[in-house]
Amino acid sequence: MTETNNSDQEDSQTPLQQITFLLRKYKLVEGLVNLQDSPDLSLSESAVQKKNLSELQDFLDQLHPADIAHILEALPLEDRLLIWSMIKSDRDGEILLETSEAVRATLITDMGTQELVAATEYLDADEIADLAPNLPQEVMEDVFRSLPIEEREQLRAAMSYPEDSVGALMDFDVITIREDVRLEVVLRYLRWLEEMPDHTDQLFVVDRNEQLKGVLLINRLLVSDPDTLVADVMTKEIIKLHPDDVAQQAANAFERYDLVSASVVDENDKLLGRVTVDTVIDFIRDKAENEALNLAGLSEEEDLFAPVLKSVKNRWGWLAINLITAFIASRVIGLFEDSIEKLVALAALMPIVAGIGGNSGNQTITMIVRALALEQINTRSTWKLLGKEIGVSLVNGLVWGTIIGLFTFAIYQNAELGLVMTLAMMLNLLLAASLGVLIPLTLRKFGRDPALGSSVMITAVTDSGGFFIFLGLATIFLL
Amino acid sequence: MTETNNSDQEDSQTPLQQITFLLRKYKLVEGLVNLQDSPDLSLSESAVQKKNLSELQDFLDQLHPADIAHILEALPLEDRLLIWSMIKSDRDGEILLETSEAVRATLITDMGTQELVAATEYLDADEIADLAPNLPQEVMEDVFRSLPIEEREQLRAAMSYPEDSVGALMDFDVITIREDVRLEVVLRYLRWLEEMPDHTDQLFVVDRNEQLKGVLLINRLLVSDPDTLVADVMTKEIIKLHPDDVAQQAANAFERYDLVSASVVDENDKLLGRVTVDTVIDFIRDKAENEALNLAGLSEEEDLFAPVLKSVKNRWGWLAINLITAFIASRVIGLFEDSIEKLVALAALMPIVAGIGGNSGNQTITMIVRALALEQINTRSTWKLLGKEIGVSLVNGLVWGTIIGLFTFAIYQNAELGLVMTLAMMLNLLLAASLGVLIPLTLRKFGRDPALGSSVMITAVTDSGGFFIFLGLATIFLL
Repeated sequence: MTETNNSDQEDSQTPLQQITFLLRKYKLVEGLVNLQDSPDLSLSESAVQKKNLSELQDFLDQLHPADIAHILEALPLEDRLLIWSMIKSDRDGEILLETSEAVRATLITDMGTQELVAATEYLDADEIADLAPNLPQEVMEDVFRSLPIEEREQLRAAMSYPEDSVGALMDFDVITIREDVRLEVVLRYLRWLEEMPDHTDQLFVVDRNEQLKGVLLINRLLVSDPDTLVADVMTKEIIKLHPDDVAQQAANAFERYDLVSASVVDENDKLLGRVTVDTVIDFIRDKAENEALNLAGLSEEEDLFAPVLKSVKNRWGWLAINLITAFIASRVIGLFEDSIEKLVALAALMPIVAGIGGNSGNQTITMIVRALALEQINTRSTWKLLGKEIGVSLVNGLVWGTIIGLFTFAIYQNAELGLVMTLAMMLNLLLAASLGVLIPLTLRKFGRDPALGSSVMITAVTDSGGFFIFLGLATIFLL
Repeated sequence: MTETNNSDQEDSQTPLQQITFLLRKYKLVEGLVNLQDSPDLSLSESAVQKKNLSELQDFLDQLHPADIAHILEALPLEDRLLIWSMIKSDRDGEILLETSEAVRATLITDMGTQELVAATEYLDADEIADLAPNLPQEVMEDVFRSLPIEEREQLRAAMSYPEDSVGALMDFDVITIREDVRLEVVLRYLRWLEEMPDHTDQLFVVDRNEQLKGVLLINRLLVSDPDTLVADVMTKEIIKLHPDDVAQQAANAFERYDLVSASVVDENDKLLGRVTVDTVIDFIRDKAENEALNLAGLSEEEDLFAPVLKSVKNRWGWLAINLITAFIASRVIGLFEDSIEKLVALAALMPIVAGIGGNSGNQTITMIVRALALEQINTRSTWKLLGKEIGVSLVNGLVWGTIIGLFTFAIYQNAELGLVMTLAMMLNLLLAASLGVLIPLTLRKFGRDPALGSSVMITAVTDSGGFFIFLGLATIFLL
């Protein structure tokens, strides 16, 4: 898909495929060398081997850090560490930043203190802060000692913000200018800097107290007369983020207002740093991924090739919760064992009522969680939404309930059983709709994340509730 | 969270809350006017009303199009159309672009042909193409006729690319330069343009055939000596996208290489347009959202205040599939009615086996789908993964199976029944793990999206399979 003009690699192969190929070649010959002890043979073999090795190394050297990170993620542990050992140490830091936490842990375990301290040498303070949770205590102490004072302060600041705050997304790569100079001077200043940070789409205009006065858009700088004053072309209506805001709010602002970078200020409008769009994209991706993982009952990202016991641990929590809700549902059925003994068809029919209820409840809950995330629900609209969901569940209950009632009648030739199925279906869908609205709103009211666990809760309710409604109705009307 | 310096709005209120407040005030007075027919009263009331209306209008005028779109999404249909009617017609186009498809449809239904054609007047060709699927045929014909030839060609091109292709993300706002001029000339050219497109972080260097030769990064332009030739500072190793590539590949490139914009070229390297990071963010968000919706059994985004029957239609498909799988599971249980009649505890226990199997299978499938999306799986690693998942399921089966076996024994005082539970649990988890790996890989092999429907399929298998395994084992060993 993407090509770089200078590379002589075949377009049809991804870097991962090429590495896998080179790695296999290397390991094959290594195997031969180890097998044969005859000295003259192993000599020529090891010459071949040297060539293979340098071929691998050359290929790695020309890859982007993000591509290397991707390759490391996709390789089984043994191959991963082999490749990792071949990477030039001045690139270690950048690559560690691009890997997932699970894979990063496997790489860091393989490195010594000195190596780790060296890896941070080429990173900015905010980047070191991103790695900090994974680094051993002694490494962080060494890193602190090795930093100049200003960066040490920045690192301390960056590490002090909680994980999902704007502060955690912030970097310190800001170019600041004064409002009373001409653009000509700004242009000369930039040339004097010789380099500008990535994602610099605006320069920050501050006064001598570092209070943010406005921004000079690079687009404006380029098209304006060099004799103009900064004050005359700068933008004063700007987005200001605060380090303690939740990161999601920054992401919403970037998405809505199509930003490339945004300023971060303290309560006195003093400029602290900026957030850039590349960090925001990573945040959005991570967040979407975590939601998908949590929905499926995985606690966190998992290294594809994690040892079995580590994976078991990651999946433990949700399975345990699931087990408890299944136990409860089982005891609800247990209450009606007499009824089932008398009319065994109930056992075959009850999972249908529970299943459709769960599916329908999850549809409602997804709608509500999404609307909450987009801040589209207020107390006034809550009642409207509840009304709508109940309406939907009544229509669904009537239609699906009738179909299921007819199906039941066709199989068991029992009209009353069919009617009980229809009625149970309608009531369980009603239950699913009401709780599908109320569960996320209640979680939210108590300051909890409405996405987390609502799906498990609604399924628990529609399972146990579905069994209870169906078997209860059957006991009353049929026996 | 975000503040704009110039606004006099209270910081604590979101625009949505303010609009809701102003709207309520407006509608309250409107109600009074309609109630009372006494002329002198209604006169003073309508003066108040005029003031309320202009207050609402002023507030709307100063809002960003994206914020207005957000407010429209959150309002019930009646209020939504009232606000929509108050918006200046030259902003209609921008706002329509920012709304979800479901809400956009409600707004467009409310507009006449002339209004719609006028709304497109302030939009670029690629933006009109985004709206095109929602616009009536006659509006598009009028729009085509009203465009200058160049834009007409662009619109035709933009509309010709399939929805999830790079072409659909592309815009035409490129600034092109030649490689044999000095930076000085480039700077003068930009000043002559007077305006630069948003997200211009690079200028595209083309020859006289519009073949892309490289890019001049704005960052480089600003820090380099104006006497330098473009050819000497331009970057030749660049990302080139192709309009027929799938959009996800562009998103991956933006995420990995931290891009702000990227060129789109045809097979002869002729520059066609560019993709910018704001479009990519929208794409990533939409994609994540659609996955979450599909997972919950919703076909598409749903207007929060859609009429009941429209919502029913959106949720119909997955409920029908769910119903079929539930029927099948029910028939599997039906096969064993004799056994359940003899030992009614089976009815209470069987949902546990099915439930845990479903949960565990969904964990596996989520891991695999994610790895497939990140292109981390090849034939060599498939077997390793299958082995790992089977290992995890064996450990889980042993542990959870034992717990459940003990629970069964505690309740029913039947050791054999406990053992059958343990065994059934292990076998169903094994089934869940194997199919959790194989279902997405098979879907992929046949060119289908592995995310779509795998969760429904695995649940169907672990339900019916779990009932069959458990009731089958019980029939063999206990009866």
